[in-house]
Amino acid sequence: MKSISLSDAATIVGGVLSGPIKEMPDHLITGVNTLSDASADEASFLSNKRYKGELDSTAAAAVLLSSDQDAPENLGVILVKDPYLAFAKLQRFFHPRAKATGQRHASAVIDATSQLAADVDVGPNAVIGAGVSIGAGTIIAAGCVVGDNTEIGSACTLNANSVVAHNCILGNKVILQPGAIIGADGFGYAWAGDQFLKIPQVGRVILGDDVEIGANATVDRGAIGDTVIERGVKLDNMVQIAHNVHVGAYTVMASQVGISGSTKVGKGCQFGGQSGSAGHLEIGDGCKLAGQSGVIGDLEAGGVYAGTPAIPHRLWLKASALMIKLPKIWKAQQK
Amino acid sequence: MKSISLSDAATIVGGVLSGPIKEMPDHLITGVNTLSDASADEASFLSNKRYKGELDSTAAAAVLLSSDQDAPENLGVILVKDPYLAFAKLQRFFHPRAKATGQRHASAVIDATSQLAADVDVGPNAVIGAGVSIGAGTIIAAGCVVGDNTEIGSACTLNANSVVAHNCILGNKVILQPGAIIGADGFGYAWAGDQFLKIPQVGRVILGDDVEIGANATVDRGAIGDTVIERGVKLDNMVQIAHNVHVGAYTVMASQVGISGSTKVGKGCQFGGQSGSAGHLEIGDGCKLAGQSGVIGDLEAGGVYAGTPAIPHRLWLKASALMIKLPKIWKAQQK
Amino acid sequence: MKSISLSDAATIVGGVLSGPIKEMPDHLITGVNTLSDASADEASFLSNKRYKGELDSTAAAAVLLSSDQDAPENLGVILVKDPYLAFAKLQRFFHPRAKATGQRHASAVIDATSQLAADVDVGPNAVIGAGVSIGAGTIIAAGCVVGDNTEIGSACTLNANSVVAHNCILGNKVILQPGAIIGADGFGYAWAGDQFLKIPQVGRVILGDDVEIGANATVDRGAIGDTVIERGVKLDNMVQIAHNVHVGAYTVMASQVGISGSTKVGKGCQFGGQSGSAGHLEIGDGCKLAGQSGVIGDLEAGGVYAGTPAIPHRLWLKASALMIKLPKIWKAQQK
Repeated sequence: MKSISLSDAATIVGGVLSGPIKEMPDHLITGVNTLSDASADEASFLSNKRYKGELDSTAAAAVLLSSDQDAPENLGVILVKDPYLAFAKLQRFFHPRAKATGQRHASAVIDATSQLAADVDVGPNAVIGAGVSIGAGTIIAAGCVVGDNTEIGSACTLNANSVVAHNCILGNKVILQPGAIIGADGFGYAWAGDQFLKIPQVGRVILGDDVEIGANATVDRGAIGDTVIERGVKLDNMVQIAHNVHVGAYTVMASQVGISGSTKVGKGCQFGGQSGSAGHLEIGDGCKLAGQSGVIGDLEAGGVYAGTPAIPHRLWLKASALMIKLPKIWKAQQK
Repeated sequence: MKSISLSDAATIVGGVLSGPIKEMPDHLITGVNTLSDASADEASFLSNKRYKGELDSTAAAAVLLSSDQDAPENLGVILVKDPYLAFAKLQRFFHPRAKATGQRHASAVIDATSQLAADVDVGPNAVIGAGVSIGAGTIIAAGCVVGDNTEIGSACTLNANSVVAHNCILGNKVILQPGAIIGADGFGYAWAGDQFLKIPQVGRVILGDDVEIGANATVDRGAIGDTVIERGVKLDNMVQIAHNVHVGAYTVMASQVGISGSTKVGKGCQFGGQSGSAGHLEIGDGCKLAGQSGVIGDLEAGGVYAGTPAIPHRLWLKASALMIKLPKIWKAQQK
Repeated sequence: MKSISLSDAATIVGGVLSGPIKEMPDHLITGVNTLSDASADEASFLSNKRYKGELDSTAAAAVLLSSDQDAPENLGVILVKDPYLAFAKLQRFFHPRAKATGQRHASAVIDATSQLAADVDVGPNAVIGAGVSIGAGTIIAAGCVVGDNTEIGSACTLNANSVVAHNCILGNKVILQPGAIIGADGFGYAWAGDQFLKIPQVGRVILGDDVEIGANATVDRGAIGDTVIERGVKLDNMVQIAHNVHVGAYTVMASQVGISGSTKVGKGCQFGGQSGSAGHLEIGDGCKLAGQSGVIGDLEAGGVYAGTPAIPHRLWLKASALMIKLPKIWKAQQK
């Protein structure tokens, strides 16, 4: 089990020891846990005020705390600017990414024309197509399928049974959770009077560095041009990105969001769960969409929206609160 | 083909022969079918009044019927308290669960350190990781992946291409439909000023006995503590359960429901399709949520809710009905 | 690289050369691209007026255009009735479906009792069960699982890691995108006082000719009778079709739509993304549902609907627009 002294922990998170633990900088901790579950050899953190009552009773050796938060006198504290970020840093110390070591399971099917860096891991029953290239340190887990001529960068992780179809491009440090599907055909047909003709989907999917795609999420390939997910974008489970969508850097979408074809989503946006957007729209940088909201027109940058059709969040809150007054409103008018 | 006498069928369902079939308790039936499709050697049932008109024309040898339902005089009837439950029992007689017999397909990859009960079946191209334990009678179908150190109970069924990641715990008689993903990483990041830092998701998923998870549904592992699905919970296809959610026993969620992180769902709740809940909430025991409703605050036990934000169902019905009067209301006020 | 003369291209799309290219019918093109990206040896098309400004600057050798659209004088034009359909036809010429050639990867597991036409392709680590039949020209990609006794027609494509469970029937030219699940158990339980009894789901899924099912979409098998998807139906990614649903020919559902059990959807319907329907309903032929709408009662054929509960689209537009006036309406009444 990994362990670290409190003073080294403070260094990792850029914090300062405070309270009784100032006298015991060499005390070792072996992990991070919640306030209620932490033991005397673990650190903890408070990032959600909802749980501040637990500061009194926690057994944690030290709590990552911001300076504007009162702490019980006898509490070991590591003062930090952002406790949640500090928690992330400490947790990443205790649980670093698994290291690729070049294992290729005998049952994996790796096309002879593919080019894998020496330390790439390929798990049992994974399939790597022709002309694929995979960069250093990437891990391809059991049951994954990588289509022909796809390029995968370094230090990526494709978890179990995820699929990247042919001709796609993944940057570095991309993570696919299990069952994610990159590069399925977009949904394109032309009506020919008596049947639909499928339009071949010949574009690619391009995922930037540090993109993470959730379990069973789907990112479709472009119809002609590409579907592009810029660097640092995080998509939760079962998010759907249609063909030719462009998602700007560091945008975050919670589970079950759906973005229709050719819509351009700006940088740094936040989509609540089950929200969606119609196609061919522009959603400006930094927009926030509440859960289940539905976008049917362009949205200005920086706005906060809710409802279907999506309207400014404050307006939606007011209107929603009055929805339940409708019976009263109606009755009053009938008089 | 399996067959059973009407009197034995009545015993299985705890019912009583009534009508002309009282005189023919030894008549054999070979299955259960709908009222419209049943033949003279099949039983049928009426559980939805919508179909009661079909009692007159059904060819079924016997119909599972509750005593408060009028039946045509010449109809063979097995009187029962709950026809739908009786149907379930009879159908389970005719279609018992497949029995595991210890088959291990040559193409399956089973780590030498895993411990499988003698009769566990492992299908083609399935992958069982290191330190896994699997109890008696469990069936692992083709293409499944079970991660390291996961414990799976007895009499479970993991259908094709489903995934259970590392360190998870499945009780007994758990069923995963194809493509279900248990134990993917939760959606957790901290913003570090210029990028997101992924927070290692080190908790587990714990599924109780008799839990069933639908096709392509996802249950994420906890960030620190565990994601817990208590006994008897049934989740339909593409349901999303985020990290550290707790779902109480016998709660049922229809397809495409999404529950955000750390929300606590009570026992015996019912969620309609495409409904969802924000994170860090408490939804009391026995709550019912209409389809597409959105929970954004704690809900008291036993309530029936609809809409986004979710409000009492009766109120929502009234308000929704009046939505379409808004043009009238508006016009009247402008006068 | 495939190439074709402009006159042959015009023949394929049933169009007529117009503008300067009338004098150069033998000029070769090598593909189709968007107006902005096309080069001088590619064709392009205008089907969405939103992009008509790009006609002035496109470098395309020829643009598929309808006769009611003005074109710059120096633009090479192929006049057609329906530019989008013409685009589809030309794209299909340049990118025909891959041809099956009877390759069976050594790692595929094909039961000896299955019957595959000579030219059926089976990819790495795919699994074909007992008693399966597969028609000429069908391609089964890597990691797919086909259950016992399922019948698959000719010229079908099962993309990576898709699953068809036992006893299902797929017509000809069916396409499953990666991760699609056909024939998982429907969601059926009876409450037995202290637990749910699972009702064995013994019906089948029947997919007609030319059906396409999106990535990670799910079509459940019937409880007793069958779940039926008629010819030409197109379901986008993560669409959910519950047990015993019947979807009429040429109906199209965008991503994340959910149809509950036993509902009958008519022919030629269009469902917007994230819309859904309750169970046991009838949705008439040719209905159009806006994105995120929720159907809770039968719908007459040919209607256009939106909202939850779904109401006529025009009414919904008016009512939605007035939602944001509710604060004003309320205030005015309080006076």
